[in-house]
Amino acid sequence: MSNNGKILNDPIYGLIEIPYGIIYDLMEHRYFQRLRRINQLGFTQYVYPGATHTRFNHTLGALHLMQKAIRTLLAKGIEISPEEAEAASIAILLHDIGHGPFSHCLEYNLLPIEHEELSIAFMEKLNEEFGGRLSLAIRIFKNDYHKKFLHQLLSGQLDMDRMDYLTRDSFFTGVLEGVVGYDRIIKMLNVHNGELVIEHKGLYSVESFLVSRRLMYWQVYLHKTVVCAGEMTIAAIKRARELVKSGTTFNLSKSLNFFLDGAFTKDSLHSDRDSILHHFSRLDDTDILTALKAFGESDDFVLSFLSQSLVSRKLFRVKMQTEPFADDYIASIKEQTMKQFSISAADVKYLVFGGQETNKAYVTGSKEIMIKLPSGEVKPMSEWSEYHIPGREVVKHFVCYPKNLII
Amino acid sequence: MSNNGKILNDPIYGLIEIPYGIIYDLMEHRYFQRLRRINQLGFTQYVYPGATHTRFNHTLGALHLMQKAIRTLLAKGIEISPEEAEAASIAILLHDIGHGPFSHCLEYNLLPIEHEELSIAFMEKLNEEFGGRLSLAIRIFKNDYHKKFLHQLLSGQLDMDRMDYLTRDSFFTGVLEGVVGYDRIIKMLNVHNGELVIEHKGLYSVESFLVSRRLMYWQVYLHKTVVCAGEMTIAAIKRARELVKSGTTFNLSKSLNFFLDGAFTKDSLHSDRDSILHHFSRLDDTDILTALKAFGESDDFVLSFLSQSLVSRKLFRVKMQTEPFADDYIASIKEQTMKQFSISAADVKYLVFGGQETNKAYVTGSKEIMIKLPSGEVKPMSEWSEYHIPGREVVKHFVCYPKNLII
Amino acid sequence: MSNNGKILNDPIYGLIEIPYGIIYDLMEHRYFQRLRRINQLGFTQYVYPGATHTRFNHTLGALHLMQKAIRTLLAKGIEISPEEAEAASIAILLHDIGHGPFSHCLEYNLLPIEHEELSIAFMEKLNEEFGGRLSLAIRIFKNDYHKKFLHQLLSGQLDMDRMDYLTRDSFFTGVLEGVVGYDRIIKMLNVHNGELVIEHKGLYSVESFLVSRRLMYWQVYLHKTVVCAGEMTIAAIKRARELVKSGTTFNLSKSLNFFLDGAFTKDSLHSDRDSILHHFSRLDDTDILTALKAFGESDDFVLSFLSQSLVSRKLFRVKMQTEPFADDYIASIKEQTMKQFSISAADVKYLVFGGQETNKAYVTGSKEIMIKLPSGEVKPMSEWSEYHIPGREVVKHFVCYPKNLII
Amino acid sequence: MSNNGKILNDPIYGLIEIPYGIIYDLMEHRYFQRLRRINQLGFTQYVYPGATHTRFNHTLGALHLMQKAIRTLLAKGIEISPEEAEAASIAILLHDIGHGPFSHCLEYNLLPIEHEELSIAFMEKLNEEFGGRLSLAIRIFKNDYHKKFLHQLLSGQLDMDRMDYLTRDSFFTGVLEGVVGYDRIIKMLNVHNGELVIEHKGLYSVESFLVSRRLMYWQVYLHKTVVCAGEMTIAAIKRARELVKSGTTFNLSKSLNFFLDGAFTKDSLHSDRDSILHHFSRLDDTDILTALKAFGESDDFVLSFLSQSLVSRKLFRVKMQTEPFADDYIASIKEQTMKQFSISAADVKYLVFGGQETNKAYVTGSKEIMIKLPSGEVKPMSEWSEYHIPGREVVKHFVCYPKNLII
Repeated sequence: MSNNGKILNDPIYGLIEIPYGIIYDLMEHRYFQRLRRINQLGFTQYVYPGATHTRFNHTLGALHLMQKAIRTLLAKGIEISPEEAEAASIAILLHDIGHGPFSHCLEYNLLPIEHEELSIAFMEKLNEEFGGRLSLAIRIFKNDYHKKFLHQLLSGQLDMDRMDYLTRDSFFTGVLEGVVGYDRIIKMLNVHNGELVIEHKGLYSVESFLVSRRLMYWQVYLHKTVVCAGEMTIAAIKRARELVKSGTTFNLSKSLNFFLDGAFTKDSLHSDRDSILHHFSRLDDTDILTALKAFGESDDFVLSFLSQSLVSRKLFRVKMQTEPFADDYIASIKEQTMKQFSISAADVKYLVFGGQETNKAYVTGSKEIMIKLPSGEVKPMSEWSEYHIPGREVVKHFVCYPKNLII
Repeated sequence: MSNNGKILNDPIYGLIEIPYGIIYDLMEHRYFQRLRRINQLGFTQYVYPGATHTRFNHTLGALHLMQKAIRTLLAKGIEISPEEAEAASIAILLHDIGHGPFSHCLEYNLLPIEHEELSIAFMEKLNEEFGGRLSLAIRIFKNDYHKKFLHQLLSGQLDMDRMDYLTRDSFFTGVLEGVVGYDRIIKMLNVHNGELVIEHKGLYSVESFLVSRRLMYWQVYLHKTVVCAGEMTIAAIKRARELVKSGTTFNLSKSLNFFLDGAFTKDSLHSDRDSILHHFSRLDDTDILTALKAFGESDDFVLSFLSQSLVSRKLFRVKMQTEPFADDYIASIKEQTMKQFSISAADVKYLVFGGQETNKAYVTGSKEIMIKLPSGEVKPMSEWSEYHIPGREVVKHFVCYPKNLII
Repeated sequence: MSNNGKILNDPIYGLIEIPYGIIYDLMEHRYFQRLRRINQLGFTQYVYPGATHTRFNHTLGALHLMQKAIRTLLAKGIEISPEEAEAASIAILLHDIGHGPFSHCLEYNLLPIEHEELSIAFMEKLNEEFGGRLSLAIRIFKNDYHKKFLHQLLSGQLDMDRMDYLTRDSFFTGVLEGVVGYDRIIKMLNVHNGELVIEHKGLYSVESFLVSRRLMYWQVYLHKTVVCAGEMTIAAIKRARELVKSGTTFNLSKSLNFFLDGAFTKDSLHSDRDSILHHFSRLDDTDILTALKAFGESDDFVLSFLSQSLVSRKLFRVKMQTEPFADDYIASIKEQTMKQFSISAADVKYLVFGGQETNKAYVTGSKEIMIKLPSGEVKPMSEWSEYHIPGREVVKHFVCYPKNLII
Repeated sequence: MSNNGKILNDPIYGLIEIPYGIIYDLMEHRYFQRLRRINQLGFTQYVYPGATHTRFNHTLGALHLMQKAIRTLLAKGIEISPEEAEAASIAILLHDIGHGPFSHCLEYNLLPIEHEELSIAFMEKLNEEFGGRLSLAIRIFKNDYHKKFLHQLLSGQLDMDRMDYLTRDSFFTGVLEGVVGYDRIIKMLNVHNGELVIEHKGLYSVESFLVSRRLMYWQVYLHKTVVCAGEMTIAAIKRARELVKSGTTFNLSKSLNFFLDGAFTKDSLHSDRDSILHHFSRLDDTDILTALKAFGESDDFVLSFLSQSLVSRKLFRVKMQTEPFADDYIASIKEQTMKQFSISAADVKYLVFGGQETNKAYVTGSKEIMIKLPSGEVKPMSEWSEYHIPGREVVKHFVCYPKNLII
């Protein structure tokens, strides 16, 4: 349609444009296409059925907002060269490229390496393929470029990643209260001494954004049933790995097998980069889902019970509360589980598990949101006279166990 | 279409149904039809051009939400008889019937009587016409009925009035962050000891609702330009009244003239009910707007200047800040205005005016939002462990003066 | 916020930008601000209560779409100079400036001059004020400029006026089926030999657009109750004029009186331009609405009956059908009306009136929508192999008469 | 929340309620939960990235609309017993339960049995499990119940299935023009002589619905790139089956292997019901997607080329036109493909394939939409005087072949 870019329909933003050239080419790359098969929110659709959107959708949305933000800053006279604009766009396009299946849920469970590190590894690999044309993007991504605001547009308390995911997750889950005024916030961005700031007139929108984010955390991302499904998935994968290591074979994809069977450390990405990237780039939600279906037919009771429960959405019971659970309460659940399901003390950890979730609505200190007053002066948001965002970290404890336990 | 009610299209809720019978008949009454000519937000459309919706739209929306709330409570086993349901519906349909032109802006300036009192007077008048069929509605409206929750659905911190106006004003102004999860909040309503409570699972939605409301106050209702236009309107009406009382005649509608020329006290509604209601029921925004156009041609400079400025949206300059303005700063503005526009010390109050706006995000004390915990226990929201709604009243001071003043 | 333009919130398009300079100055002009007081759809809100939006809202929306269309065409390499872009923007901003109160409904009834002619007269007046800077806009508006596509963006079967009003009227009435894919259609615009064409890939969107437009005509614009309210308004104004001419005085605004009392021909705009523009620019919906309220207290039964009915929305009965009504049927209604209301044969035309409404979904011939095929060839839409838009004009006949007539 | 049903958030309809009891239990059944893993539109997200919604989402939406339709008909006095209402709800909940992976695309390619037949088989299986409580639902589904309108709400030109899928697919693809006025159409439904009819006032909405549907067919469902991806998937599966049958083994899920390796006829569902249902109920999109990834590493060039292309979205070139392609044109493409890819004449059918797609906007004859006139008379829509829906079947021919073919 246009001569300048590919036009795509987005259910939220309408028609969006992917500029032809390296950005389009990266979107077409199989590394990026893989994100189509990684759900943005894993099993969250077990609670909010509409949440079927993917990392692919989110990343294109974040790219769209990055382009808006850059246009806004340019219109305000901020200097951003075409190369910098392209690099920031590349960086946001690829910021989630290192996410694996079930994103945050299985992060660290398949491989003891954070997704940002994997993102960098993929970017560097692509940089080799594209003849060094991603170098500036990588520097911005690593916050290794003097115009700090470009990195802050990617990663900070008001970055385009958050703007899109809150907007998108709110839209697809149907949680209206999660809506954020991304459009207005973007219009209010500015730069001061090379750092991203928000103009004073945008303060109420930012406050609302932070409260929406808090709501999305407790209502969606850390919803107790979502947490439970996630923990069950982790337990299934851990159990499967244990069995694989002890010699059991399953009908798994080769790449999933690679990660279950292998032994990885934080260093593996350096020592064994190419085979890790090779297999990681072949892995997505479908490997896990077909594995769970296969596990459901395993002779191992623990694994088949967890897997069948997950596949058919027969989730465990979950309790979540602000106070920690008493040790003897947990002990009694474990005991009853061992008895009722005839499993060993070593195995009960796969059927009874707990932990805590934390969320902080706003981070003060060096990463604070900075406000630009009408006077031109810049000060941290927490010094705003009407400020009331809770900085306190909220902690919630949870415990999950099989549904029909008699306790 | 249906046999049970009139189907109307609402841009927000889609098809809504007005039950045939007394509710439909009241909607058709000329007292109620008058609300079509009263903008919900007065001159707010001078800042948010989309805000052209009327009290008529709002009231039908609030009625729709009331019906949803009643259905939800009935499904939870709360006892509400058909008569009570109808009475609560009538009460919300008529809750704004006593609003005059420009609603809150001119309230008290045309007549020293609050709109709720006028609403009651109109309801009583209609009760006579409808043979006493509004008696229960009036009792509920006056909080004079033992099922307190019915009144609280009309008027309280989580009433259907607020649910609709925040939703509607956010929609028409385009201020996305003002969106509230009315649907979810309504689903979470319950009744405990005859009082409205919210179930624990709705807490984040209520928090988000309170923050959205705060945002709407400062971003929309008390936006400095909106405040300025409102104060200018009040100044024009006061000036016109002064001139009318001193014998000047204008080309005004008979009913507007009645209020400008008359002398009213808080008691007038009792001493002179019928003529007040007669004229008030003939008054709407169009009387004020045509009056302003006529005032624009007045020989009185103050009145014509204010009126032309309003009609053509050449609004005064307005400053708004959290600290009070220094007396000598105001004095210097007044002096300069007198000099520059050659007006007297007595008249300068019509061209330079200030005041303060206040808003409280949440009211603690006897009117608090009550939470129903999973245990069945009920406690005030401010005792919720994660509570952080600011209870402090925010005050902002403003001053308005002609735009081209050389100061 | 931006340095380049004023940012406004639109409930449909989100944040839109009005470029500073002449476009912003024209928007701020009192001629244009008057459009805030002219409802886009007159009494249509008597059927679709949400339809409270104004000509002001519509025109800003059309301007926004014009800017999108120009950006799209520029991106396709079409030559449009900054001066041409500005002129086309000015032309669409002012295309409705000649609309009077109740737009199409009272057009020709206050003054025998079409609104386009009045728009041109206002543009020329503004051109004098703005030192000739509107000259090119006026040429484009009059289709007197060699780049025909600029005029076609204003006025044609796919113009930005229609794109906005269908989108906007659908949104505010809540008639979902009226939604048009304006975004996609604009992306598909192109220019061939100086004329606007649509690329082949946009054909289904255009077909859907034409069907939506047809639906909006019969479901909204020509809805029988809307037609009835419009005809009643015309009858009231005609009756009032008759009485004014015969010496009755009403409490009317000076400018409305000017039009009711005066004698105008098609030539008046030339012979008497300045006083016509003076008074017309002071006239809006509020003059008519306050007049109707005043008329309601008239001694003349016909006028007071019509006016009270309109103000309280006690509309006449209306019948609408595809066949013409039989003469004797109309005659019997008139006779019964005369008898029942004791009015003369001369006056019955004010209480019983009929007519016909017509609509054509698509106009073939010289003004056809032209399709650009992938081959580059351009041909009229009606030659598209899958074409099925009905070109036939649909005619509907209606008759209106007082509600309680015993017939 | 409610005592009557489970409340779920739907991005389109807001909060929807699934009644507790058999409907809720069926939704919780693993047969139904499987639909979470079947995308509503298969690879359509390769063209419209937002289209990630599933059969699960669609079916719950259709259930919601069915409940609305039933409430509307009940309010109009149509007799529907609670048992009938429940049965109709069950029938729509399960209408797609027989869909396999990639829905329509692979239908008939895994198994020569239509999805409706499989739906019935699953319903009968569930009927056994639920002690006969689905019997009435099955009769309605099979159109074997005297109240024909209950079946027509499931399957007909205005059924709730279409209402939801058009609404939903339009929403998720972002194709605005596909929006249908489902709410208004449902309000206009009525029953005449046991058959579903639409009231006259709903005609324009129905016309718009039919045009939207036509647009969705050509713009989305039969979009040439969507067709191409679908045909490539079919080719890959056919090729894989050929290889499996000739002894090649792949790392496939057991259930997918069952269908690739087995030999089925139309009768298999009777002769071998239980094992077919067993394996079919374990099959979903993830089996196909992981299979395609595994196929990508096959030694067979044809299979690995097709599969890698699909997984990385390197789709074949596709041409679509209203005229059939000339035989020699196809022959030359095949020849060139054989040469360039060194494949045999027997294998070229997997890399060059064509066919035709057809769509009819409206079906006349015995299944016509029936209109209820204000007189009470009922007649087919095609006799409506303003009727213009094209009844003609549109046929489009397509051919797909590898992208870099030099022709």
